[in-house]
Amino acid sequence: MKQIESIKEFGGWLNRYQHDSACCDCTMTFSVYLPPRAATEKVPVVYWLSGLTCTDNNVRTKAGAQRYASELGIALVMPDTSPRGEGVADEPDRYDLGMGAGFYVNATEQPWVRHYLMYDYVTRELPALIEAELPVVAGLKSITGHSMGGHGALVCALREPGAYRSVSAFAPICHPSVCGWGQGCFGAYLGENRESWKAYDTVELIRSGVAKIPLLIDQGTGDEFLADQLHHQDLQAVCQEKDFPLTLRMQDGYDHSYHFIATFIGEHLAYHAQALSR
Amino acid sequence: MKQIESIKEFGGWLNRYQHDSACCDCTMTFSVYLPPRAATEKVPVVYWLSGLTCTDNNVRTKAGAQRYASELGIALVMPDTSPRGEGVADEPDRYDLGMGAGFYVNATEQPWVRHYLMYDYVTRELPALIEAELPVVAGLKSITGHSMGGHGALVCALREPGAYRSVSAFAPICHPSVCGWGQGCFGAYLGENRESWKAYDTVELIRSGVAKIPLLIDQGTGDEFLADQLHHQDLQAVCQEKDFPLTLRMQDGYDHSYHFIATFIGEHLAYHAQALSR
Repeated sequence: MKQIESIKEFGGWLNRYQHDSACCDCTMTFSVYLPPRAATEKVPVVYWLSGLTCTDNNVRTKAGAQRYASELGIALVMPDTSPRGEGVADEPDRYDLGMGAGFYVNATEQPWVRHYLMYDYVTRELPALIEAELPVVAGLKSITGHSMGGHGALVCALREPGAYRSVSAFAPICHPSVCGWGQGCFGAYLGENRESWKAYDTVELIRSGVAKIPLLIDQGTGDEFLADQLHHQDLQAVCQEKDFPLTLRMQDGYDHSYHFIATFIGEHLAYHAQALSR
Repeated sequence: MKQIESIKEFGGWLNRYQHDSACCDCTMTFSVYLPPRAATEKVPVVYWLSGLTCTDNNVRTKAGAQRYASELGIALVMPDTSPRGEGVADEPDRYDLGMGAGFYVNATEQPWVRHYLMYDYVTRELPALIEAELPVVAGLKSITGHSMGGHGALVCALREPGAYRSVSAFAPICHPSVCGWGQGCFGAYLGENRESWKAYDTVELIRSGVAKIPLLIDQGTGDEFLADQLHHQDLQAVCQEKDFPLTLRMQDGYDHSYHFIATFIGEHLAYHAQALSR
C-alpha cells in the first residue's frame, strides 16, 4: 500500500493510503487516523463504515472522531463505500446504486460481481492489510458506521462472531430487505432470490439465530429517512423476540447528518475503547 | 432575518439565517450555533471569521467547534466571507479576489465599493442584528478566525478597542500589505495608495500604536502558506518593538487545514469563554 497524504491532527496522524485490492479488482483508497500512542506501541482499531454517497473523506472531515481517538489511544480505519475507477460497473445517474453504494455485500450478479465484493474487503482484505502494515494489535478491533455503513457494521459483527470486540451504529438501515435503498442494491448485487438477501440483513440475521453480541445504536427522532428507510421498529421487535441485547437510544430531534454523528461519536468511541481494553 | 435551516447538535441548535444586508447591499447568509444554555438565558458570543474560498459552511462542518461551544455555553456566529449574488462584483476565475475573498475591509474602489463593506458588516451590522434577534448578551463578544479570517479577527479587535473581550487567530495573514493575497485584495478594494492599507493590516496597526489587547495565535510549522503569505515573523518583531502582548504558539508539524483548527479550537474557545465570563 502507498501513503498518499498525511496530516497532523490532535497529536497523531490522519493518513490516506491507496492499494490494489484483490477483492475489488481496482485501486482502493482509505484513511487511517493513528493516535499519538501509536508512535510508541500497537493500538486497537475501530473500523468506520460510511453511508451512501460517501468516500473515506466525509467522516474524517465532519465527525470530529479524531479528537476522541487521540484521547482514547485507538486507531480509526475509514474505508471507501464501494470500488471505484475506470471499468468499474456503475449507475452514474443514481446515488444509491453502484459507486458510493456498495452496501458492504459480496455481489453475485453481473455486472457487479467482478468488483463489488465489499463484504470480503472490509472484513478480510482490509484488516489483513492494516494489521500487516500499521502499528495496530492484530485481531483487536471493533466496528461502527452510519446509515448504509451502520447496516454494514451490524452485519459484519453478526456474521463474524468473535471478530469484533464491540459494534455500534448511527441511524443504520436495519432491515434492508424491506426498504427502497436496500431492495434496489440487493436486487442488483444479489439477484431477485430474496433468500440470498438474508445473509446481509440485520433483522433477518438475528431472526436466524446468530450468536449474540450487544448492539449499541443511536437514532435521531428527526431523521428524514427514519420512516421509509431505517425500520428500527423491526429491529426492536426481532431483538425482543430473540432476547437479543439491543441498546437503541432514540435521540430527540436529531437528524441524519454528520452533526448528529458528531454529537454522539465520543460516546461510541468510548464504548468501543472499553471493549477493546478488556 | 429569516431562519432557513436548523439542525440539532450537542444539545443545542445549529441555525442558518438570511437577511438583507445594508452594508453589503445584498442577501447575506450566516450560521449561528446556539448552545443548550441559550434556551433559558442569554449567552456570550464568539465570532468566527473564515478564510479564502469559505462560506459559513466550512467551519460549522469541519472545525468541531460546536462541541466546545455547547459545553462552554457560548454562541458561535459564523458569517460569510464576502457579499454574494447576482450583480455583486466578482473575479470568477480567481479564488483570492471577489466572492469568497472579502478580506474584511470596507472597499473604496470601483467596482467593489457598492457591496464589499465587510468590515462594517462584521463589526457593526451583524452584531447589531444578532443582539436584536437572538438570545445573546449585548456587547459580550470575542472574535477569532482562520487565515484571511485570522487577519480579520485581529484587525477588528485592534481597530475596535473595548468591543471584543478577547481575540485569537489560527494561521492569520499577519502582514497583508506585503503578501500576494493581501496585495491583490487591498490593491483592488482600497486602491494603490498603500497608506490606506495600513488601517487593515495587523502589523501596521500595532506599529501605529493602537491600544493593547492580548493576541493568542496558533500557527502550524507545516503550513504550506507560512513562508509566502502569513509573515508571523513580522508580527513577532513589531510586537517586541511595541511591547505588545503576543502569545504565538508554533505548533510542530501542523498544516493550514481545518484538521489543524480542530486540534486547537477547544483551547481557543476555552480562552474566549474565560474572557467572556469576567
